Amino acid sequence: MFDAYGTLFDVFSVTSLCEDLFPSHGKQLASLWRKKQLEYSWLRSLMSRYRGFWGVTEDALVYSAKSLNLEMSANERARLMDSYLHLATFPDVKPGLEELKRFGLRLAILSNGQPEMLRSAVESAHLSNFIDTIFSVDSVKEFKPSPRVYDQLPCGLNINKSAIGFVSANNWDVHGAGAAGFATFWVQRSGLETPEELGCPSTHLVNAITDLHRFISHSDATENL
Amino acid sequence: MFDAYGTLFDVFSVTSLCEDLFPSHGKQLASLWRKKQLEYSWLRSLMSRYRGFWGVTEDALVYSAKSLNLEMSANERARLMDSYLHLATFPDVKPGLEELKRFGLRLAILSNGQPEMLRSAVESAHLSNFIDTIFSVDSVKEFKPSPRVYDQLPCGLNINKSAIGFVSANNWDVHGAGAAGFATFWVQRSGLETPEELGCPSTHLVNAITDLHRFISHSDATENL
Repeated sequence: MFDAYGTLFDVFSVTSLCEDLFPSHGKQLASLWRKKQLEYSWLRSLMSRYRGFWGVTEDALVYSAKSLNLEMSANERARLMDSYLHLATFPDVKPGLEELKRFGLRLAILSNGQPEMLRSAVESAHLSNFIDTIFSVDSVKEFKPSPRVYDQLPCGLNINKSAIGFVSANNWDVHGAGAAGFATFWVQRSGLETPEELGCPSTHLVNAITDLHRFISHSDATENL
Repeated sequence: MFDAYGTLFDVFSVTSLCEDLFPSHGKQLASLWRKKQLEYSWLRSLMSRYRGFWGVTEDALVYSAKSLNLEMSANERARLMDSYLHLATFPDVKPGLEELKRFGLRLAILSNGQPEMLRSAVESAHLSNFIDTIFSVDSVKEFKPSPRVYDQLPCGLNINKSAIGFVSANNWDVHGAGAAGFATFWVQRSGLETPEELGCPSTHLVNAITDLHRFISHSDATENL
């Protein structure tokens, strides 16, 4: 079970368009946009004012441009939002998923994104052959790390919680899945990130998706084949 | 009804001690500490893993020091935590509260802080004569901006929601109180902060606590005297 944004898809692949539209502010805009996107997802969940991730992402973009004193036209806004449907994957994603598929594992996504956003991103990145199922928080109208988000998985997949491994590069998401009782794999690509102090550290630590196949035991593989 | 940290108390008054202990990293440490303190309060609420604000504040400090590669001894940690019990107030706080008291208003605090943290901060800043009641999120075991936090006020004060004005310098807190149905006053001291895009903008905008008395109508004042 894979997180999408930041784990499979590089949310900072929007930076080059940000830089094209707002020269010398691209990095700052992309970074604040992502920070606010997460903050707004947490705050809206807590306020019991759920709004789909597309709207939250757009709100975060509007705030970020205003906050950086960048005048953004409706057309520029639409182009930036559209880039969220065509994010690049990290280099380890395709070979890593391919390897796991070779073991016969079922692979799925659990993401804050709305189903149509996720389908676009998966198709655009040519991941459709690897991903069997897409789960979205949209079905429970609360964002990660609410336990209700993760709790939909065993029933949705018709398997036990203990047969699911949750993979995320977002350490707070790892804590959330851990708090909900799942085995977790934290993908720490840079090797430099400090783990969060949230009480539920990752079960396993990997440097890339391509390292995950090492955790598959013979019995897991034959069970799934 | 006043928010405490960032509204009455300057959370960045810890910066000088941060700088004394970690020369040339003080500002960075104080800033990351505050950012993580808020993030952890939101994430723990969402995870249904409430921990008192003292523990959350300490977790945020531990993360921040690690993340900045600062070696923090147990004694340094204790000194930094202790500074949270003796925060400075902003210059407009005492004269502003004094003015409101002259109109006979009841003044209270609603804060993420645990009751004993808040009592220490209020006493240490000599605000006890102005603050009639202290409400903490600790009674509902969820942090702001959960509506359950704000919803305890009318019953706790035995007055109607419409007779309460909620004052905060934290714009996300203003949105939270607004979503819960309260009239809100956003204290924007710098005049530069961009309002959040969270759907419930402030009812009123002021530059300082000393501006609040202008909103008191003759009837409010006589009702309370």
